[in-house]
Amino acid sequence: MLNSQILNNDTICALATPHGMGAIAVVRVSGPEAVTIVSQIFTQNNKPFDLEKMVANKAYYGHIVDHGKLLDEVLVTFFRAPHSFTGEDSSEISVHGSVYIQQKLLQVLIAHGCRMAEAGEFTRRAFVNRKFDLAQAEAIADLIGSESEAAHRVAINQLKGGFSKELQMLRSKLLEMTSLMELELDFSEEDVEFADRSQLRALLDETLAHVNRLKDSFRLGNAIKNGIPVAIVGQTNTGKSTLLNALLGEDRAIVSDIAGTTRDTIEETLNINGILYRFIDTAGLRQTDETIEKIGIERSYRKIHEATVAIGMLDATKDYVSILSSANAIAGKVNLKQQQLVLCINKVDTLADQGAVLLEQLRHDLGNDEIKIIRLSAKYGFGLNDLYNTLKHSQPLACPDATLVTNVRHYEALLHASESLKSVKEGLEMNVPTDLVSQDLHEALYYLGSITGEITTTEVLGTIFSRFCIGK
Amino acid sequence: MLNSQILNNDTICALATPHGMGAIAVVRVSGPEAVTIVSQIFTQNNKPFDLEKMVANKAYYGHIVDHGKLLDEVLVTFFRAPHSFTGEDSSEISVHGSVYIQQKLLQVLIAHGCRMAEAGEFTRRAFVNRKFDLAQAEAIADLIGSESEAAHRVAINQLKGGFSKELQMLRSKLLEMTSLMELELDFSEEDVEFADRSQLRALLDETLAHVNRLKDSFRLGNAIKNGIPVAIVGQTNTGKSTLLNALLGEDRAIVSDIAGTTRDTIEETLNINGILYRFIDTAGLRQTDETIEKIGIERSYRKIHEATVAIGMLDATKDYVSILSSANAIAGKVNLKQQQLVLCINKVDTLADQGAVLLEQLRHDLGNDEIKIIRLSAKYGFGLNDLYNTLKHSQPLACPDATLVTNVRHYEALLHASESLKSVKEGLEMNVPTDLVSQDLHEALYYLGSITGEITTTEVLGTIFSRFCIGK
Repeated sequence: MLNSQILNNDTICALATPHGMGAIAVVRVSGPEAVTIVSQIFTQNNKPFDLEKMVANKAYYGHIVDHGKLLDEVLVTFFRAPHSFTGEDSSEISVHGSVYIQQKLLQVLIAHGCRMAEAGEFTRRAFVNRKFDLAQAEAIADLIGSESEAAHRVAINQLKGGFSKELQMLRSKLLEMTSLMELELDFSEEDVEFADRSQLRALLDETLAHVNRLKDSFRLGNAIKNGIPVAIVGQTNTGKSTLLNALLGEDRAIVSDIAGTTRDTIEETLNINGILYRFIDTAGLRQTDETIEKIGIERSYRKIHEATVAIGMLDATKDYVSILSSANAIAGKVNLKQQQLVLCINKVDTLADQGAVLLEQLRHDLGNDEIKIIRLSAKYGFGLNDLYNTLKHSQPLACPDATLVTNVRHYEALLHASESLKSVKEGLEMNVPTDLVSQDLHEALYYLGSITGEITTTEVLGTIFSRFCIGK
Repeated sequence: MLNSQILNNDTICALATPHGMGAIAVVRVSGPEAVTIVSQIFTQNNKPFDLEKMVANKAYYGHIVDHGKLLDEVLVTFFRAPHSFTGEDSSEISVHGSVYIQQKLLQVLIAHGCRMAEAGEFTRRAFVNRKFDLAQAEAIADLIGSESEAAHRVAINQLKGGFSKELQMLRSKLLEMTSLMELELDFSEEDVEFADRSQLRALLDETLAHVNRLKDSFRLGNAIKNGIPVAIVGQTNTGKSTLLNALLGEDRAIVSDIAGTTRDTIEETLNINGILYRFIDTAGLRQTDETIEKIGIERSYRKIHEATVAIGMLDATKDYVSILSSANAIAGKVNLKQQQLVLCINKVDTLADQGAVLLEQLRHDLGNDEIKIIRLSAKYGFGLNDLYNTLKHSQPLACPDATLVTNVRHYEALLHASESLKSVKEGLEMNVPTDLVSQDLHEALYYLGSITGEITTTEVLGTIFSRFCIGK
């Protein structure tokens, strides 16, 4: 399915370092003519570079010269296939980090027969040349985009190939099952049923459990990659936007004393102690006739449902009955079995005891140890550390080195594989004809194979790599 | 004067590529421990890197590991003193371009004994280790900042050392003069005057002419580096801001029909055919009682004086007498011997013949071939190409490979040297005692030496290198 011939018979170039001005910039060239083209524009001591004496992987000092004009002093390193990132002949040119030089060098390379690389094309070529599988290629994009220690750890584990190895193991188990079943099929005329159906069932249960474990890890994996979703909820004017601003240290949300200022949900990510949180400020929870605000409030309920942690805002300046009623209302919206609820008694700066009595009374009346309650003054930053600590302990970060699925594409493939395996199990239990069961097994194999790219289409590849940046 | 001991006995690190996310990023390490420190955190095939077998200038594939935790897959190149950019032992680590990895790697290097480099510290060390002189070091900063082909060409010529060689030649001539003069001094008791005073005078004239040529090249050199200054002048509401917007292709200046909208001068640079122009929009030229606008108009006159090219805007919708009077008024403000004047008859879209008759009549009545006149509709973009072409031919770009001074510091040093040499000349003509003349000669030597850094102070160096970016 892969048209690797078409993909690989030309030589591509691109800027590999971030755009803009810096001390140096690196331009990458890869493809059959990479070494020849670069050597044509590279001189040492005013003489053309001697390609005959070229040693691969060595950094050469010299000059890039275009039509007799000196473009820059550079370091050039040549790599020979298959010992390069792409697995092709390639070259890295390290130039002074001027935007003019970067652009001009790419122009000169194109004039000598290179083509500008498409997004992700270097990594795609590496995949085609079997330098790594698809899951590892996707891990590179995740690695580059990782914004926290936890996200980095998950991406680097995936790049190391742990996930790929697990998938390979699963696939070999499924293949073993397939051969057991096909043995049955071969003898089906004779109406033979083999004694090792129990072995088949055990293998199936084990595999299904493993696939489900990987599938379920997506909730945490995704939270680590994109941030653990934290919804900030509460009645109007309890200080939700003020808290968000305090957390982010800037005026991201509009704060005003007019009830109902926040209509759109606002999302911001914050790295606390190496873990990324995605804070969601929501419209105040109240009955309203104003149409736009109504939409905002509906969205607010939905956001609570999506969140892993809900921060419930209570207003310490209100009377106790309405505070307790608000607390109960919020607790009623949160699924305490799956979600963590932190109630924040806000504006405690207005109370003489900073809300100490209020806290104890609320804790007693709610009578639920699963609900954390803290005192806060979002306006003055009092209690923010308590909130950070509560957040830190609210999310079990699992065994950090266990494989976590972070990619929606992988999650969906695992979901499909899990469903196919369930069908296999049901089929075996209901004595469905072996050839139908075998079909479900092949489907499961297909889905698992699509993750690492053993089974894939050009379209799928196109979609995956187009999300990469140019130069990667 | 240089405290190179203090400067060089520690090992520095910094990000060398632009900030932000990219396919790859490069971290530079330089100093006595550069190779040791990097080898401590670098592994190959899960084994510590074998420093014994290290080959300099070779790109090694491996992993950066911190306390047993894999940080990234990397390419590491080691360089051995003096064969490196800084002339010290150094290393370049090419990592995946994640902001997290970049920051973490710098933290790990610092934990192993590196120090974050100050701005320009790599280049400063290279200068201290005599990899190049000060003028060349400054050319690196210019090269990185160059925004046009012409600016790039000037910077790369300077980096190649052409300017430095000229200065060295000038200095050796001055030294020759000094020794001739000091020979006289030695025999001064005997009241001897040597026959070769004519030789001294010839040498002096030649040197002074050369210094002046370099000094005068600053006008063009500076224009190429920072853009050729083009002032747009004219009465209010003639369309000056509209023209600037049309040239820049965006709404940079505020345009309105209220006379006197533009109070601040606005500067914008534009690269036309490889040459950078610095367009200056000025407040309309008219008598006014409004204080703020008065300041703006004064500034406008000053800007005309600073400009190499003046674009005079005329309003085609006015009566001919006032157009001619405006044209004469503008021509009176421009020094036609040193500056180029381009009169633009704007708003010709309102005339049936697009201003053809008006153009001929104006050309006839002004009767000065040095003044270029073109027809324009800034609003609709008509005539912009004529203007581009006129600008292109308005600036003689000299012999492109001649040395051009682009740096204010160099210009000032040359100015001082020129004055000192003039004093020498006057002294010789007026038979001033040789020891006094000799003092002026030493001053000239000092100023020329300060350009390449043969004579310099730590303070001067500090000022120069602090303008560099970190990592350079």
